[in-house]
Amino acid sequence: MMMTPEEITKTMMDKDAFSQWLGIEVMEVSLGYSKLKMIVREEMVNGFQIAHGGITYALADSALAFASNSYGNIALSIETSISHLYPVKVIDELTAIAIEISKSNKIGTYQVEISNQNKKVVAHFKGTVYFK
Amino acid sequence: MMMTPEEITKTMMDKDAFSQWLGIEVMEVSLGYSKLKMIVREEMVNGFQIAHGGITYALADSALAFASNSYGNIALSIETSISHLYPVKVIDELTAIAIEISKSNKIGTYQVEISNQNKKVVAHFKGTVYFK
Amino acid sequence: MMMTPEEITKTMMDKDAFSQWLGIEVMEVSLGYSKLKMIVREEMVNGFQIAHGGITYALADSALAFASNSYGNIALSIETSISHLYPVKVIDELTAIAIEISKSNKIGTYQVEISNQNKKVVAHFKGTVYFK
Amino acid sequence: MMMTPEEITKTMMDKDAFSQWLGIEVMEVSLGYSKLKMIVREEMVNGFQIAHGGITYALADSALAFASNSYGNIALSIETSISHLYPVKVIDELTAIAIEISKSNKIGTYQVEISNQNKKVVAHFKGTVYFK
Repeated sequence: MMMTPEEITKTMMDKDAFSQWLGIEVMEVSLGYSKLKMIVREEMVNGFQIAHGGITYALADSALAFASNSYGNIALSIETSISHLYPVKVIDELTAIAIEISKSNKIGTYQVEISNQNKKVVAHFKGTVYFK
Repeated sequence: MMMTPEEITKTMMDKDAFSQWLGIEVMEVSLGYSKLKMIVREEMVNGFQIAHGGITYALADSALAFASNSYGNIALSIETSISHLYPVKVIDELTAIAIEISKSNKIGTYQVEISNQNKKVVAHFKGTVYFK
Repeated sequence: MMMTPEEITKTMMDKDAFSQWLGIEVMEVSLGYSKLKMIVREEMVNGFQIAHGGITYALADSALAFASNSYGNIALSIETSISHLYPVKVIDELTAIAIEISKSNKIGTYQVEISNQNKKVVAHFKGTVYFK
Repeated sequence: MMMTPEEITKTMMDKDAFSQWLGIEVMEVSLGYSKLKMIVREEMVNGFQIAHGGITYALADSALAFASNSYGNIALSIETSISHLYPVKVIDELTAIAIEISKSNKIGTYQVEISNQNKKVVAHFKGTVYFK
């Protein structure tokens, strides 16, 4: 029996210890799409007292995982890139939206935009996955 | 008075709460170069029980930061990409080595290779920074 | 006296021997934006008889150059990536649209989407420039 | 009967109209490796009178194609990135060397470094392919 995108995401999220540590909340998920939120905490900053690049990357990578696994086939991330566009600070509320740019039998390409509570885009991510 | 690459890295690392959470240990740092280690913990896995992509990315991004800031000018990461090449598991010991591909007054390009305790390359990262 | 985006593009295009060889036609250009067209010719294919990756990349790179130089400051491409999503054939008519994702004093990030005459997206490009 | 890497490359190159237009010369090819040369001509420059980004990209993409197809399975380029590190001028002689970073059954990752006649690295390329 096929699982819905919501059920797939819930199953993944329940076992995803790092997304839980990040405090990621799944707002919405559908075929090839996901929308996540999280709040930046003090333990997430780098030496310049802004969010470590790994934090926004991790949020985008989780958004990619939920969007690309929504069809019920396991999707493995093979190549990703992220542009850090604007500094992220403690207590910023980040929203990540993943959309599908392209999908074939074996390869999918997704884009994730992350914005803060003032609608400022803080990072732009592109990810390519391989469907097992 | 100029600080050495080691002093700069120590100052950054002391305030870098997320690199501390990751358990990153700085093994070596010199002009345009850094070598870091960390051990993957249970709270770092994703829904497939392998290390979340954000973990290897964060390790690589810290290696980039230490290598590119070693000259004493603030280096801001503007665009980075990572290829996830091999699954990373809990208790794997990761080593990240950042080297400089190119550096001008304003722009630097670095490559970071991450390998596990069996010398298997698990991720390949490229990062471009802007020198303030 | 400030030049308009159209005048800047015309000046660049007049000296741009390779964009001329490609047969690029500038459809529209404004601040941070450009729209180009070209038709794929037989001398542009690779060993699999589809358009060489360098052709779609070059079209996207020209779109990036016109969009990012539209403000009148010289913009140098520093890092670009392209996903090849769908095969491009001889006599395909390609349209490239460059939009601005982000722009600061020194760094700009642009996205270029290339589609064929059937509105199929064939390539997705991201480029980061440095403003001199 | 298996073809050698040299035979595969020759077969590809014979039909590769654009690599021929570029004047690409195959210096060496083996499993997962290729070395190419070309000379930059006047018709290859952009509006700033330096080589169009599409030229160095195309050279790197051909190097990727020859290195990744050397095993006898068709390799399709799915995601590539290039950093333009140093200006390329007319009559520069470029050498591209592609090496394999990683290879599984389905996915391969390659790096291509392009340098000029003075051994200066002018571009750094990373490419991911899917093996059919």
